[in-house]
Amino acid sequence: MAKRDNISMSVIRRLPRYYRFLDELLRSGIVRISSGELASRMGLTASQIRQDLNCFGGFGQQGYGYDVAKLFGEIKSILGVDEGYPAIMIGAGNLGRAVSIYISGSGKPRGFQLLAMFDKSPKLINTCYNGVPVLNIDDIEQFCRENSPKAVFLCIPSEGTKQLIDTLYDCGVRYFWNFSHFDIAMKYPDAVVENVHLSDSLMTLCYHITHTDTSETDS
Amino acid sequence: MAKRDNISMSVIRRLPRYYRFLDELLRSGIVRISSGELASRMGLTASQIRQDLNCFGGFGQQGYGYDVAKLFGEIKSILGVDEGYPAIMIGAGNLGRAVSIYISGSGKPRGFQLLAMFDKSPKLINTCYNGVPVLNIDDIEQFCRENSPKAVFLCIPSEGTKQLIDTLYDCGVRYFWNFSHFDIAMKYPDAVVENVHLSDSLMTLCYHITHTDTSETDS
Repeated sequence: MAKRDNISMSVIRRLPRYYRFLDELLRSGIVRISSGELASRMGLTASQIRQDLNCFGGFGQQGYGYDVAKLFGEIKSILGVDEGYPAIMIGAGNLGRAVSIYISGSGKPRGFQLLAMFDKSPKLINTCYNGVPVLNIDDIEQFCRENSPKAVFLCIPSEGTKQLIDTLYDCGVRYFWNFSHFDIAMKYPDAVVENVHLSDSLMTLCYHITHTDTSETDS
Repeated sequence: MAKRDNISMSVIRRLPRYYRFLDELLRSGIVRISSGELASRMGLTASQIRQDLNCFGGFGQQGYGYDVAKLFGEIKSILGVDEGYPAIMIGAGNLGRAVSIYISGSGKPRGFQLLAMFDKSPKLINTCYNGVPVLNIDDIEQFCRENSPKAVFLCIPSEGTKQLIDTLYDCGVRYFWNFSHFDIAMKYPDAVVENVHLSDSLMTLCYHITHTDTSETDS
């Protein structure tokens, strides 16, 4: 696999889409595809696809197009989806449980292996959810020192993240999948944070309804 | 509330952040704030904040700053968070249930009122989850005709969305909160879609671990 530095975030963010589309093509038994055909399925242009994939060394062959299985394998390896990086989940409530099932219960490799979930609720501590133990949040520091999780998934309110983030950072964690609203990157600029802001997304939808409806009434 | 047309998506996407930060300020008992102080808390610049809020008519007063409660109320009303738009959820699995709790179980207004959840699993049909009935997916068309949900939340795999989307669109639904990977906006460009792509976000995190770690090993 060829590697390049300075790949733009917009290219990186498109990689998972390539991965999904190629996975679907493979499942439909399609063995090769032109950049034009792939572009039309993905809602991109052929030249954008060629440019994107050139960042990683190309993979296409003129007049033949892309070998779907090979390209899928390359992108899978670029993403590191099979790596199984050790991770822990903070919060074993509804969202935490749903996300944990998503990561380890679907049978699809997601790049991570969930070692444990942590919660403060006595009802949840020392239970097991879908094969993953739920531990006491008070033991998180010791657990991190002993197990060196690569990533932490935060499915708790922002106040909880605020209280825990220094401990997690001090234990060496630099990768966060953050469902809380606490701005980790503002406090620790060297942390890599993927935020999932459910409420922002929902409120944006709400805004559109409010304003489309208003303008319909106005006219 | 002053209204302006042609407000850019980046301004609209910042509104929920203003809402959250102002909510927090209110809870901390802060009654007024300068654009500079708000900017520093939000990681923006004061001039960006003034520009953003000017899109909706200003709200600030020179030498005084912003009245927190008033600004919060204005942004709440711009977003329509109190409207309680009727909505339905497709998929009552782990993710659907977690999202339903998020919408109607937290006590916070989220802009929507969840009328029902739909699933195909006989184990779930005709149960009730957190006060929301789980109905048979086969009855969705009739339900939509009778209840005119404004928005549909899709917590199912992309294949399910592909099968249902025409029915939902034909029933008049134009607003979608889409956790599946089916590209609704490509098929129906006039639909308003907020996508939450959990796997893309997680794979992006995975990419960063894979590549940061690789470069560390290389050096």
